[in-house]
Parts: sequence; C-alpha cells; structure tokens
Amino acid sequence: MSASFAAVDSPHRLITPGPVLLVSVGDGSDDNVFSVAWSMALRKAPPMVAILSGKGHYSWDLMESTGEFGLSVPDASLAEAVLYCGRYSGRDVPDKFSAAGLTRAPARIIAAPLVQEAVGHLECRICHVVDMGYSSLLVASVVFAEAREDCFTEGSWDFSGGLRLIHHLGGDRFSVSSGVLGAD
Amino acid sequence: MSASFAAVDSPHRLITPGPVLLVSVGDGSDDNVFSVAWSMALRKAPPMVAILSGKGHYSWDLMESTGEFGLSVPDASLAEAVLYCGRYSGRDVPDKFSAAGLTRAPARIIAAPLVQEAVGHLECRICHVVDMGYSSLLVASVVFAEAREDCFTEGSWDFSGGLRLIHHLGGDRFSVSSGVLGAD
Repeated sequence: MSASFAAVDSPHRLITPGPVLLVSVGDGSDDNVFSVAWSMALRKAPPMVAILSGKGHYSWDLMESTGEFGLSVPDASLAEAVLYCGRYSGRDVPDKFSAAGLTRAPARIIAAPLVQEAVGHLECRICHVVDMGYSSLLVASVVFAEAREDCFTEGSWDFSGGLRLIHHLGGDRFSVSSGVLGAD
Repeated sequence: MSASFAAVDSPHRLITPGPVLLVSVGDGSDDNVFSVAWSMALRKAPPMVAILSGKGHYSWDLMESTGEFGLSVPDASLAEAVLYCGRYSGRDVPDKFSAAGLTRAPARIIAAPLVQEAVGHLECRICHVVDMGYSSLLVASVVFAEAREDCFTEGSWDFSGGLRLIHHLGGDRFSVSSGVLGAD
C-alpha cells in the first residue's frame, strides 16, 4: 500500500517548479505541520533552499529549538489538507497531522516527521535567518531528499503517470501543473 | 495589437504560483535580460520579492550600479525565449532582447526595460543582498506591478481565457499550469 521512495541527488529539482509545500517541524515529542506558498531553491550543490515563516507561527519555537524542518511536496490529492494546514494553527489543533488527514513518516536525518502521502520529501537544517519583520526568511541546507519513484524519474518530475502538482494562486485556489511543455 | 495592462496592488500574487521569470536590467543606455527559475515572494505589503542571481552574470554589474531589476512573467508562448535567455549570455549577444525575439517595454519607475510580450511586470529595487558564494540572493521592494487585464482578474491569475504559465522542471523542460483546482 505504501509508495516507494528513492533518494534524490538534485533536491532543487523537487521545488524549482514552485509547488506549494507542507513544512513539518518536531523534536520527537511535539510536532506540527503548516503550508507555505513562498519558497525557493538557492543552490544545487551543496543543496540549499529557503522558505518564509511567520515568527508568530506555532511552529516557530520548534524550528528555533531544533534548527530543522521538513518539506513535503503535496500533489493535487492533498489540496484540501494543504488548505487545512494553512488555515488552522497548531496552537488550536492538538494533532494537526491527524486533523488534516496526514500521516507522519519518519525522516532519515532530522527529528521532524514528514508527510507520508506527499510525492517528495526534503530534510532541512537552518543555516541562516534573514529578518523580515513579522516573518523570517529561513535559509537551509538540504541534508536528505527523496521522491516517489513513480513521480520523479531521471532527475525531474515525471507527469506521465498522472502526477499533478499544485501552485498557490491565493486564498483557497491553486493552479495545477500536469504536463510538460512540448510533450503530451 | 498591444495588450492592455492594469496596475496590480497585490504583486506577490503574480509570482506566488512559482512561474519561471524573465529578469531585465538596464541603465538607459545598456540593458540585458535573463531567465530565473528561482524566485519567491517575501512580503505582501509593502511588497517584496527575492531572486537568485549569479555574480558572474553579465547583468550583475548593471544590477549593482542601478540597484534595480524588472521581472516579467512569461506565458507558454514565450518558452523558447525563456530558454534562449537562460542559455546565452548578454556578454556574447549584443542585443539579447531582439535575439530572443522580445520587445522592450518602458517601465513606469525603474530604468530597466520590461518584456512587452509577458503577461505581468514587476519593477523592483534591491534592498538587501544575501551572499551565497557564486551567487547572491537579491531581496527587493516592488515599486510598481501590472498584469495583462485578460490574464489577471480580482487579484489572481485567470486561466479562463487560455492563460498557460510555465514552471521550470530542469534543463529545457517546463511544466504548464493552465487551470484552477476545483474548476474547469
């Protein structure tokens, strides 16, 4: 029943197309998950990424104390869960993974759990924080990355099996990418 | 023949879905245009964005001397031009706009030209630079933004007229977003 994942040696490729992401944090006893539309790859090797996070987020303290976060790439089947994770705070929901219908998957290196239902995972360690006022830009090293074997082939997302990635338009709306330009 | 643009008061919405972007630089006498797959919105109000740029780029000196750059959002019809702008340096191409088949459109506030054929424009002033080694993360204020009226309505990209945004997968491949989740 569980999908098969393979390690990815070009983690930037997982987020370069700009899909919305689920960010997970945890220290082994407490955890949380939230969604971000604002993220980017920063370096291929050694791989680095950045996300923006509000300092008032329930997850902030866990990110600060662990220095880590996980990124999970949802496909279109998780759109409702992504909206739930963006709408409700872990402060008000005791078990946000379960409340959002998401399953914790253990990470290889970081303490935070990942989202099992996602099609890609990146394990990240924060190495630089850019103060943006209410929020901070978290620059992080990717210490491990993997993707579902049926969705990511030859270093690139593979839409031939029906993969649909979602891109945040605003509010509760996403655009969907499901094909490659120049191919059917 | 020329498309009609309207000012946008939520510039972050133009790039939140993660499309590939064309970056233009210029000081009124010299100019250049290149493509970036790595960018993100950073703040809604006042609007801020970030892009990654290599320090060895031909455009680097113009960005440094002017402190400005333009962002143009291409649709799928510009995919070849985007690839051209990513493949060739302005160092080797005297007039990269023309060579890529792109038309300069005057910006409202910055000196750099914008790409007329694009569906959205953001005029940016660099306010913070994060050193990343070979490259730098350029954090910038958006001083003006506009989008084509038939492609961006009620503060969001509007795919009902056939708009297709392109997202970089790697190499010369893009995924295409052309619809909204939950709508046809």
